[in-house]
Amino acid sequence: MPQTVERRPGEDTIALPAAYDAGLYFIGRIRTPWPERRDCPKNGLQTDAVCTLNLDPVYGPGLQNLSGASHLIVLYWMDEAARDIVRQRPRHADGSRGTFSLRSPARPNPIALSVVENLGIDGLAVQVRGLDCRDGTPLLDIKPYYASTDARPDATVARAGAA
Amino acid sequence: MPQTVERRPGEDTIALPAAYDAGLYFIGRIRTPWPERRDCPKNGLQTDAVCTLNLDPVYGPGLQNLSGASHLIVLYWMDEAARDIVRQRPRHADGSRGTFSLRSPARPNPIALSVVENLGIDGLAVQVRGLDCRDGTPLLDIKPYYASTDARPDATVARAGAA
Repeated sequence: MPQTVERRPGEDTIALPAAYDAGLYFIGRIRTPWPERRDCPKNGLQTDAVCTLNLDPVYGPGLQNLSGASHLIVLYWMDEAARDIVRQRPRHADGSRGTFSLRSPARPNPIALSVVENLGIDGLAVQVRGLDCRDGTPLLDIKPYYASTDARPDATVARAGAA
Repeated sequence: MPQTVERRPGEDTIALPAAYDAGLYFIGRIRTPWPERRDCPKNGLQTDAVCTLNLDPVYGPGLQNLSGASHLIVLYWMDEAARDIVRQRPRHADGSRGTFSLRSPARPNPIALSVVENLGIDGLAVQVRGLDCRDGTPLLDIKPYYASTDARPDATVARAGAA
């Protein structure tokens, strides 16, 4: 997998462990209108684009009963991200931030999470709205979104500068 | 990693791929009051227990600026889950369901996701409320929760039986 090593001032990198602790299967691919990272919207609310989760056939039976969920959590693999950056400087920010305080793709385990609208399922394809990733992004998991446990509308994030 | 092979009626299993597509680093461990899976609450809203995300020292600088987030998304690895089950029968359910329509730990990539309250950070330890996992569970990632993109309070999930 190519790592886009895009070093910027304000980054702190680490030596990653010599071996992985667990392995992932790519269960399909995500089709989106954006061929490259630079084409992607900043987040999934900035676009109305319909994207498609295309499952590999072996995992198809896992989609049963999913149409009952109005919203889904999609986990996917940001395969172009550097993994050794523990502090990084976001574009337009005035200083460095800890990686875990950001939603940046660059992180030790580049698993992205998006909450999407479930527009319908046809065979191995799930149509969704709310993604912002590159076309062809590897899919890791789909989960039903439960407002009771997943929605925290009053959650806040302090602006830049907060420790 | 031990796989708890707990076969039940109504399960459909598949042959998983021969090789993994990507690898994960465990970035720390989660300390909770529940030593075994059977001790765990059904979900993180059923308990007020304070749990601790203990990061490995190398990842510590990644925690900077995280205290500004009132809520966090925690990703962790359900290392006891079977991964080859595409349809399963939840306890107390009348039939089988597709794996991706459930939040069951058993899934091709057993990555769990919990939304938690951020109670404070001290060195390598993040105190949180809202977890339901076994003590010692491997930690994969911490992200700030953004109400704008992550909260969907009106999301619904149809009751059992919906296709």
